[in-house]
Amino acid sequence: MVDPREPAGSVGTVFPQVLHFSEPLPLSNGTVLGPYQLVYETYGTLNASKSNAILICHALSGTHHVAGHYAEDPRSVGWWDNMVGPGKPVDTRRFFVIGVNNLGGCHGSTGPASLDPVTASPHGARFPFLTVEDWVHAQARLADRLGIHVFAAVMGGSLGGMQALQWTLTFPERVRHALIIAAAPCLSAQNIGFNEVARQAITSDPHFHGGDYYAHGVIPERGLRLARMLGHITYLSDDAMMTKFGRELLGGTPHFSLDVEFEIESYLRYQGKKFSERFDANTYLIMTKALDYFDPARRTGGNLSRALSVAQAQFLVVSFTTDWRFSPARSREIVKGLLDNRISVTYAEIDSNQGHDAFLMENSDYFAVMRAYLERIARECCS
Amino acid sequence: MVDPREPAGSVGTVFPQVLHFSEPLPLSNGTVLGPYQLVYETYGTLNASKSNAILICHALSGTHHVAGHYAEDPRSVGWWDNMVGPGKPVDTRRFFVIGVNNLGGCHGSTGPASLDPVTASPHGARFPFLTVEDWVHAQARLADRLGIHVFAAVMGGSLGGMQALQWTLTFPERVRHALIIAAAPCLSAQNIGFNEVARQAITSDPHFHGGDYYAHGVIPERGLRLARMLGHITYLSDDAMMTKFGRELLGGTPHFSLDVEFEIESYLRYQGKKFSERFDANTYLIMTKALDYFDPARRTGGNLSRALSVAQAQFLVVSFTTDWRFSPARSREIVKGLLDNRISVTYAEIDSNQGHDAFLMENSDYFAVMRAYLERIARECCS
Repeated sequence: MVDPREPAGSVGTVFPQVLHFSEPLPLSNGTVLGPYQLVYETYGTLNASKSNAILICHALSGTHHVAGHYAEDPRSVGWWDNMVGPGKPVDTRRFFVIGVNNLGGCHGSTGPASLDPVTASPHGARFPFLTVEDWVHAQARLADRLGIHVFAAVMGGSLGGMQALQWTLTFPERVRHALIIAAAPCLSAQNIGFNEVARQAITSDPHFHGGDYYAHGVIPERGLRLARMLGHITYLSDDAMMTKFGRELLGGTPHFSLDVEFEIESYLRYQGKKFSERFDANTYLIMTKALDYFDPARRTGGNLSRALSVAQAQFLVVSFTTDWRFSPARSREIVKGLLDNRISVTYAEIDSNQGHDAFLMENSDYFAVMRAYLERIARECCS
Repeated sequence: MVDPREPAGSVGTVFPQVLHFSEPLPLSNGTVLGPYQLVYETYGTLNASKSNAILICHALSGTHHVAGHYAEDPRSVGWWDNMVGPGKPVDTRRFFVIGVNNLGGCHGSTGPASLDPVTASPHGARFPFLTVEDWVHAQARLADRLGIHVFAAVMGGSLGGMQALQWTLTFPERVRHALIIAAAPCLSAQNIGFNEVARQAITSDPHFHGGDYYAHGVIPERGLRLARMLGHITYLSDDAMMTKFGRELLGGTPHFSLDVEFEIESYLRYQGKKFSERFDANTYLIMTKALDYFDPARRTGGNLSRALSVAQAQFLVVSFTTDWRFSPARSREIVKGLLDNRISVTYAEIDSNQGHDAFLMENSDYFAVMRAYLERIARECCS
């Protein structure tokens, strides 16, 4: 049925769907959240045995919009459109693919900017901090509603990879394969430090109003801009930045002013501004906190191997040589933890100049590994 | 006269001195600055032939207070006290050592917070942006006033190392040795990116008032805090941070709040706050801009070897393995440029876990190299 000679394409026009959950979700912080809604997209067709489903988890600033585009805007292309589509590594002619916006998000799922049905005003600072486990529980409920008991694969990059890993620990029997890309088993102190600077930028913005800025008709735009500028530096390698932006002065000589003088300044200011216009500051805080908290080995006294011993999935772990946010060494910690448990794991350390962002970019080695591994999953699961 | 068996000690009580310069200083930006003053300290004794002087240039947040302590506060120890003193690598029993606060600074030399004699109010945003060359010119005038024509050595770490390098190009005949530690021949795009985030943090603070916050009786304290927090992350290696702070949660479990939860958060907040209480925001902008502008090869079409061809000094270049702000590769660019010109250069790449901050810390390999090289200078210059 699938002709491999057909050129890879787009899933085409897509549309988000919404599911409401009336039963409150118990959270890691001891409270419950709900009722709530999740917004998601699907691509491809769920087969009769419901064995060909892949869940794609998003990273810090990602959304449920993974592939294709919206009818009203052909430029609204999903964030992993190069990876997901007919004939692409995640081949939508074979797999049923789900993208979901996480709880606490700002793209349609219930989050801090959503109206609290009791007060009819945004949750704001009263919205709870969440953990990767909370997201996995919410995603599992979505899977239940879609009739999917076992995923052929759960996958994601960065924070998305952490969710894939958590799936194999929280619901070992529901994941056949976990694809963990450019991730880490927990943040380093440096990672937490960068997150903390971003949070301080947001919370020290006079427009933050303790998280209840919605009521004041303002947003902590300065703080969000700074947080995103900083983020972007950590997503790229030093080399990639130098190649992309160089250090030539605009006009060739110093301006002796605070104007933009180097291309990297212009890039960061633009990225910061764009982000502040589309992303909710409270969501940014929730996402960075979830990153900081993620640490499956906390429950096993810091012993990652013991923490991973419950996993039943098979694993693909991918890292990128110049990723200094989550370096290959961090991925190798996961690999070692799996091997200690005799769990099947394929590890690929991809030679790339692109830093952490490499997981989003087309790279022939990377895509070949993904394609081969997903081909194997397809043979197992897509009958 | 010098007994090497005597234990290394402190230069003891020191005091800053001030020199006024009535003749305006021509600046790189095409204007002039002046009259102005420079605050400086000296340790040791200038010999009769005035051949034993060493100039120590400070880094971004440094000052003229290099060694010893002030009479009123025994804890006010200079920033390089481990390096400079009787029996220390920069042995004040043999060398006459000068520390100077750079123009644009906020510790006594004329800077943006100084009163403009014409308006009797702080210069603020009207204070010019400076270059490393401007500082070298100002330092040369100080040397003239102290009767020093040729320095036995000009030395510094980080931005201080860049000044030492610039000395050998601006005044080739006035420097016998340049000691360039943890520096780079120019910033990378990533370095500039971090500086730009710091500047945006400061200038977007509502208390910045376009640089004229003095008149409003406020300081852009939030911006300064963020700038310093970010700086501190780049001064340490990922490993050193992990060793020093770990990622244990205070109390063992998440608080699900924006309180301090990890030790690194506490450290960064503390450092940021302390810095904002002692450092002028406009000076921070000037220092980061001078860093961004530094690029001796700009005049030679990007050819560093050609730029360095005028140097007559001999060089010691030191880098540290885990310094990712100015990595060893950047120091090796300087070494290569010197070797291309058959200039004498000793290069030491020190194995250290401490990141960029290593240049300020006692490390036996590092100090042995410094001691040996300075011993050689002493034999040449301290007769």
